[in-house]
Amino acid sequence: MRSGLIARVTASLDEEGLPHVELGGVQPNPRDTLVYEGIKLCKEQGIDFILAVGGGSAIDSSKAIAAGVCYDGDFWDIYCGKGEVKKALPVGTVLTIAAAGSEGSSSSVITKEDGMIKRGTHSDLIRPKFSVLDPKLTFTLPAYQTACGVTDIMAHVFERYFTNTREVEITDRLCEAVLLTVIKEAPRAIKQPDNYGARANIMWAGTVAHNDIVGVGRSQDWNSHGIEHELSGLYDCAHGAGLAVVMPSWMEFVYKHNVLRFAQMATRVFGCEMNFEDPEQTAVNGIKAFRRFLHDIGMPINFAELGAKEEDIPTLANNLAAKYTTRGFVKLSKEDVCEILKIAAHANI
Amino acid sequence: MRSGLIARVTASLDEEGLPHVELGGVQPNPRDTLVYEGIKLCKEQGIDFILAVGGGSAIDSSKAIAAGVCYDGDFWDIYCGKGEVKKALPVGTVLTIAAAGSEGSSSSVITKEDGMIKRGTHSDLIRPKFSVLDPKLTFTLPAYQTACGVTDIMAHVFERYFTNTREVEITDRLCEAVLLTVIKEAPRAIKQPDNYGARANIMWAGTVAHNDIVGVGRSQDWNSHGIEHELSGLYDCAHGAGLAVVMPSWMEFVYKHNVLRFAQMATRVFGCEMNFEDPEQTAVNGIKAFRRFLHDIGMPINFAELGAKEEDIPTLANNLAAKYTTRGFVKLSKEDVCEILKIAAHANI
Repeated sequence: MRSGLIARVTASLDEEGLPHVELGGVQPNPRDTLVYEGIKLCKEQGIDFILAVGGGSAIDSSKAIAAGVCYDGDFWDIYCGKGEVKKALPVGTVLTIAAAGSEGSSSSVITKEDGMIKRGTHSDLIRPKFSVLDPKLTFTLPAYQTACGVTDIMAHVFERYFTNTREVEITDRLCEAVLLTVIKEAPRAIKQPDNYGARANIMWAGTVAHNDIVGVGRSQDWNSHGIEHELSGLYDCAHGAGLAVVMPSWMEFVYKHNVLRFAQMATRVFGCEMNFEDPEQTAVNGIKAFRRFLHDIGMPINFAELGAKEEDIPTLANNLAAKYTTRGFVKLSKEDVCEILKIAAHANI
Repeated sequence: MRSGLIARVTASLDEEGLPHVELGGVQPNPRDTLVYEGIKLCKEQGIDFILAVGGGSAIDSSKAIAAGVCYDGDFWDIYCGKGEVKKALPVGTVLTIAAAGSEGSSSSVITKEDGMIKRGTHSDLIRPKFSVLDPKLTFTLPAYQTACGVTDIMAHVFERYFTNTREVEITDRLCEAVLLTVIKEAPRAIKQPDNYGARANIMWAGTVAHNDIVGVGRSQDWNSHGIEHELSGLYDCAHGAGLAVVMPSWMEFVYKHNVLRFAQMATRVFGCEMNFEDPEQTAVNGIKAFRRFLHDIGMPINFAELGAKEEDIPTLANNLAAKYTTRGFVKLSKEDVCEILKIAAHANI
């Protein structure tokens, strides 16, 4: 399918008389090495527009190349906080998996192959100028990748949902709308890969989940993403799979910070009955329902299922601590991160 | 407040050394006369950017001027379907009322003073380049205008919600998110005009309701808007007030076309209990709940309260029929429009 799509895209570029050169070789957890190659190619060929055909990895690589071509120095500076995007080539996308939301977002995450260090950057200058979202292009996605994508979408929403900003009903409700949708549609898409309705709903959910329309005006969290990047950095596992292991465990660790917010999630998103005598029970039931949902769509929910090792926990926590101080819903110490990873190691439904 | 705001805006333009000229005199149901004046002013002064400060009327006028300046001929051509926007000056906005959603939309509606003919146009070229949404600017809005704005927001969502496209769960849920939010927040904003949370939630709801993020990939209706434009054209009433009279009446007339969709609205948006033995009852209860909500926030719900006259119904229906053929959820004949207006004339809670 993928190569068929590339042929279709190049044929329509040719039809319009638009000259183009191709750069292949994108891997999951996209690497700096390809970015360097792309920057060189763009400079040599005088490229003035980048069309990403693929998923988050292709799009994030394209964004990095787009910024890198216009950056005076090593593009990696931008990703490790030493430089910033001041100019970028325009990027467009043809999306083949609903997951990362990169087709509508201002962010890009790249992994430095030397040491497998995963870093991200944000800039409206690298937000795609257009994205082609054709649900049919996702019909051939295997169940596992579909489920990884759905998990990533849910995580993008939850990172925004758990906030310390009060009275943000509109974005709460919009977040819940995206979650309710993928909870309904993911099992359908997995069972019937060519179900247009299910694929289309998930696809638009994925874009809305991460173009920040559901996150406006509220503090966000992003610690689960931070922790997960260490897992996929170390084990090269799928980002969605790592999130399935980390995020419910993070929830179990932090929910006491705001029991009623978790109870709201439980009742509005997972349809749990509100326990008015013991709201904490409702909160816990919501987290359990989330983990069970992830398990049901085929995601790993603990270290063994992910292929991670408990003895790596100190390394994972140290790597994270070396690069960033957690902030957001609940600030986490290195010990807190270890605790969350211990929960994740042994989690079960 | 309004003149205070203009002073603030001009002071900050001066501070940045940005030369500017001012055009005042916008009225509700904004007129072609001001647009002609604006186009002339822009041409004379070589204006290259238009900043709209105000609500939908100021923004829609600015969009019309922005398109008109670049149009070779009478700008009204664009509004009556004889011309199209091919170029426009960039427009920015500072929003003072959550209602029309024009701050994020591609549309503009102008009334030709000669005959009070209301017409609209759409183009991404007139979508604002930026909009400043500061909820504090809406603190001084009177209750009536606040309620009119909320009604307009709800109508923008309902025009998208009632669709013949199947399996559009993501946009259904996003629509419901906006509706649930304003149903919660409107009474708070009316009771406490300076409630930041309530004002902020309504403001973002207003933008999301009409920038089409909740309408992607689904057929829409827009017949209630069409009918209402005749009312505000003839009586110069507030658009939101006209919608409060028309929309529930339209719902009563069309709901049998898809009883379960109306039952979905009733249960998900207005919290009605689903009657599984008689879903039609649930549908009807939802429409009743909508009309009661509008009444409770101080909106007119029938002709007498709006200041409309039953004897004008044939004129209103003829005027509408002269300019457009209804399409959307249910196609309406001229007789159907008369029936809806008769329901509206006598509606009550």
